[in-house]
Amino acid sequence: MTPAEMHALVERLYPICRSITGDGVRRTLEIVGELLPLTVTEVPTGTEVLDWTVPKEWNIRDAYVKDPSGRRVVDFRASSLHVVGYSVPVSGTFTLEELRPRLHTLPDQPSLVPYRTSYYAETWGFCLSQDTLDALDEGPYEVLVDSTLADGSLTIAEHVVPGELPEEVVVSCHVCHPALANDNLAGIAVAVALASRLVAPRHTYRFLFMPGTIGAITWLALNRDRVHRIRHGLTLACAGDPGSLTYKRSRRGDAEIDRAVTHVLRGRPHTVLDFSPYGYDERQFCSPGFNLPFGSLTRTPYAGYPEYHTSADNPGFVTPEAMSDTLEALWQITRVLEGDRGYVNLSPYGEPQLGRRGLYGSLGGRSDTKQGQMAMLWVLNLSDGEHSLLDIAERSGLPFEAVESAAKALRTAGLVKEKT
Amino acid sequence: MTPAEMHALVERLYPICRSITGDGVRRTLEIVGELLPLTVTEVPTGTEVLDWTVPKEWNIRDAYVKDPSGRRVVDFRASSLHVVGYSVPVSGTFTLEELRPRLHTLPDQPSLVPYRTSYYAETWGFCLSQDTLDALDEGPYEVLVDSTLADGSLTIAEHVVPGELPEEVVVSCHVCHPALANDNLAGIAVAVALASRLVAPRHTYRFLFMPGTIGAITWLALNRDRVHRIRHGLTLACAGDPGSLTYKRSRRGDAEIDRAVTHVLRGRPHTVLDFSPYGYDERQFCSPGFNLPFGSLTRTPYAGYPEYHTSADNPGFVTPEAMSDTLEALWQITRVLEGDRGYVNLSPYGEPQLGRRGLYGSLGGRSDTKQGQMAMLWVLNLSDGEHSLLDIAERSGLPFEAVESAAKALRTAGLVKEKT
Amino acid sequence: MTPAEMHALVERLYPICRSITGDGVRRTLEIVGELLPLTVTEVPTGTEVLDWTVPKEWNIRDAYVKDPSGRRVVDFRASSLHVVGYSVPVSGTFTLEELRPRLHTLPDQPSLVPYRTSYYAETWGFCLSQDTLDALDEGPYEVLVDSTLADGSLTIAEHVVPGELPEEVVVSCHVCHPALANDNLAGIAVAVALASRLVAPRHTYRFLFMPGTIGAITWLALNRDRVHRIRHGLTLACAGDPGSLTYKRSRRGDAEIDRAVTHVLRGRPHTVLDFSPYGYDERQFCSPGFNLPFGSLTRTPYAGYPEYHTSADNPGFVTPEAMSDTLEALWQITRVLEGDRGYVNLSPYGEPQLGRRGLYGSLGGRSDTKQGQMAMLWVLNLSDGEHSLLDIAERSGLPFEAVESAAKALRTAGLVKEKT
Repeated sequence: MTPAEMHALVERLYPICRSITGDGVRRTLEIVGELLPLTVTEVPTGTEVLDWTVPKEWNIRDAYVKDPSGRRVVDFRASSLHVVGYSVPVSGTFTLEELRPRLHTLPDQPSLVPYRTSYYAETWGFCLSQDTLDALDEGPYEVLVDSTLADGSLTIAEHVVPGELPEEVVVSCHVCHPALANDNLAGIAVAVALASRLVAPRHTYRFLFMPGTIGAITWLALNRDRVHRIRHGLTLACAGDPGSLTYKRSRRGDAEIDRAVTHVLRGRPHTVLDFSPYGYDERQFCSPGFNLPFGSLTRTPYAGYPEYHTSADNPGFVTPEAMSDTLEALWQITRVLEGDRGYVNLSPYGEPQLGRRGLYGSLGGRSDTKQGQMAMLWVLNLSDGEHSLLDIAERSGLPFEAVESAAKALRTAGLVKEKT
Repeated sequence: MTPAEMHALVERLYPICRSITGDGVRRTLEIVGELLPLTVTEVPTGTEVLDWTVPKEWNIRDAYVKDPSGRRVVDFRASSLHVVGYSVPVSGTFTLEELRPRLHTLPDQPSLVPYRTSYYAETWGFCLSQDTLDALDEGPYEVLVDSTLADGSLTIAEHVVPGELPEEVVVSCHVCHPALANDNLAGIAVAVALASRLVAPRHTYRFLFMPGTIGAITWLALNRDRVHRIRHGLTLACAGDPGSLTYKRSRRGDAEIDRAVTHVLRGRPHTVLDFSPYGYDERQFCSPGFNLPFGSLTRTPYAGYPEYHTSADNPGFVTPEAMSDTLEALWQITRVLEGDRGYVNLSPYGEPQLGRRGLYGSLGGRSDTKQGQMAMLWVLNLSDGEHSLLDIAERSGLPFEAVESAAKALRTAGLVKEKT
Repeated sequence: MTPAEMHALVERLYPICRSITGDGVRRTLEIVGELLPLTVTEVPTGTEVLDWTVPKEWNIRDAYVKDPSGRRVVDFRASSLHVVGYSVPVSGTFTLEELRPRLHTLPDQPSLVPYRTSYYAETWGFCLSQDTLDALDEGPYEVLVDSTLADGSLTIAEHVVPGELPEEVVVSCHVCHPALANDNLAGIAVAVALASRLVAPRHTYRFLFMPGTIGAITWLALNRDRVHRIRHGLTLACAGDPGSLTYKRSRRGDAEIDRAVTHVLRGRPHTVLDFSPYGYDERQFCSPGFNLPFGSLTRTPYAGYPEYHTSADNPGFVTPEAMSDTLEALWQITRVLEGDRGYVNLSPYGEPQLGRRGLYGSLGGRSDTKQGQMAMLWVLNLSDGEHSLLDIAERSGLPFEAVESAAKALRTAGLVKEKT
């Protein structure tokens, strides 16, 4: 999948009105399903999932605020952001004064429309720019929310790339946000691209496309007996903005995923944050009962950019280059997770004579020892049964791939064997 | 006790000539006893206490150096600093040359009178300013030290605030210094104010008013079998100078008292020092046989200000504001010690649904998550039986009181229970 | 041995053509043997040593490149650097074009002659300055390498200073480099000076003078069953350049040698590096099978100065002052290794009364507590059976010798005893 194709996917998904349930999510998953085979699960309203209950399903066909001339001054058809998510149906006439408590704006960003939801308190409302609001007169206004909130189901989807091992690497994306491009259509697009690139991996890779919070909770409830298979996990979001990459550590803080991501990011502008129990679905995966090794990879993190949760988070805000950069970092991370293992030096007393095996330059005295030779010396020195290749990369400061190549060369020469 | 009342206590105690034994200490404890009920213990001269022996009791009525005109050029009545502590009696006539080895000055601070003692070597001497010394002619001088050094007793006093638990928080002040206001009349005044404020605490609080070194050693000798009850301890000194607060860690370095004080000081200008075996009576409490969790709280630490152990450490050097600041920090420290405990998340798989319990705002999408909600998420995430509220405050960076309030709200909602 | 004598030794050894075998090493060890009794071991060509085999012995009598006029444009007699180490014999006439692949220069340092070897690939070549090369015309040139490469032996030498304990401190120097003064004639000279200064030490001291890599591997092969006696080890090299001292930690990273050297260097300009498996013979001693506590002491480390492995590393580059500074640091390191031990406080409850034992000034109140008194308080406080004198020096920030003196004074006073 090219960077342009990832961006095209963002643009294609952008107009769909998504929420935590309903046809918007289903339509989104259909489009993803054109690119990746998905297993879709529908979980009925009322199902008890951990401490929660699957809510009613919400669908919406239209919504507007019309001025006396019949003009739609707030129009759902222009952007799904204009209606508060999970708004209950309404049809009537209101003065501006009556409407005001139901109109959400961003006074500090007067030209932008905010994103607001009310999943668990039945109400209705509209989002609009402060500029639009300021231009409204007293009305009266004709108001319509043509929605349904009724028993139905919550939709989650999975794509699995089977590996040699049953142990899984999980990448999770939330799919519940309406017209917001970075949060999280870019994450979805990068996840699709990553999944497409994986061929016959060692670990099994599981990609989860689910509504935030309730989706993750539902998936965890359904898979409670299988989560011990998860060896490494990442939530992926905000994958396309122009900022540099940010990694938030797992609750454990020193899980292998934490170390692998940190190692890969070392060579790029980046930020590493300690775990905190807010953000994306790592909140659920890292709840103390599960305590899974899940970190979170974003570019600029949630609430860290002015476009966050506003109409400015549109396809123009995310770039093919940024999505490609996220993808390449993710790919490198999978290279570390796939390649990391321990070796045992079979000639641990003194250095083995690399020269006679063709692994060392024959001309002595030069001071420009090469990375490849240093990597071999490090692998030999630390392959004592206690250190993995990632440990060696971290301690030596060498790139993981150099260490891995050295280990392979030494294995070919019979100097190390894989630790069993 | 108001800041002004603390300062008035310093002024009232200042003129009394204190030493490690004698009526000055007794008079000081009588005045403290007007404010707090005290249990006073008299330990006879010659009692063996750990490696030491309670010394003879020293009392003094008058001391002077009179010039040939009969003028008191050095006068104990003007300041108790003028006589070397524990000076033996003397009466006679001396030339300046003969007197010189017994006259202590501060050549680098020529207008100030130093503080000197000789508890364990029988001698006598005077302290005076270098300026005064420089103005003296050859004499001869009439010299009097009207003191007694005789069998008697050493006086220590305790005030106990009984708590729910037998485990104790100990605050220890030295009461042996003569006319020195910051070291340690301000400490005494702040300790009295703190004791007055404690009502029905969880821990039992014990305030010790004792001579430095020999007093602490005597108390430890008498209480050797009971020191295991001490859960947290602080020596309190230099509590009223204009500098910022300084905490010196216990010998253990990571005791709960160390973490509680460090947490409270985080939000203020302050210094944290590692333990060293010099300073105040933490030297004794932290000796390796006892190794109690005792830190030391001061403002500017001993020997860290030019007024230290000189006549410039007078009531004008300590301020009501500084004493009040010390008191409030101490109060916050007791709030942490009182409130710290572990909780267990009863809904540890995924986040519990806070919204339906009224613990979470219903309108989603906003980026200004409040401290109270973050505190609840942190308490839920870390209440796994391994972390106390102070652990959670430290890891989250939130104030202890926010974490404690969140825990109480979650307990009320039945989401956590106190760890037993 | 005075600094001037150390420098004279460097000058005397400089002209000898050393390599990993041959008469140059033997002559070098004869000269060292005039200063220190040495046990010399000859290990025959073909002996299997760990993963290696002792190579053929190389000796050389003359080598040159003569121009058509008969002038030696490259002349072994001028410097042993001019011939690639282990060059096989050759005699013939070559054009410049034919010779070029065998002529090694340093284009970035055009006036200097590089150091090159080819121990394990049979070839021949010359080293010369780029300036010399640039001045050569097409030739033809008469070329001679009058060398022999034949069965013989590898030479290693040891000097042992017996101590009270069988446990050893090992100092290892490589003796295989030809005309290079800092690398490693200065190291040899400093080692000789250190050995000369040791009298009846507690540990047994072993000085190893061996060719790099193959020498260390041979010694380790011969002493495999005895290396467990090595308690502390250092490779010593580059001991005379004007840079400050550099210590590279052992593979263990926190061995006592690491802590002792770091403690001694604290008071000097210096650098501490983490272990890496490149450098000098610590590579062999720290291979994972042996994992000995060997660090590496140098001034500017290998490849860290422009003179490294060039003709500019001549006796003018090393100074008596620098060698003396290295020696004194080494001496202090031995003082720590010799003196470090644990004591047990026999009066651990409270401070013992130092004053009545004459260990503490009798005049109280002064703020200039002396280092000696602080050292006594620290030794008493930390002599709990868990801390050695070096631990105490590290934690207190006091010099080791102050801590050691305090411990001796306390032992004399019966307050501490040596831990058994």
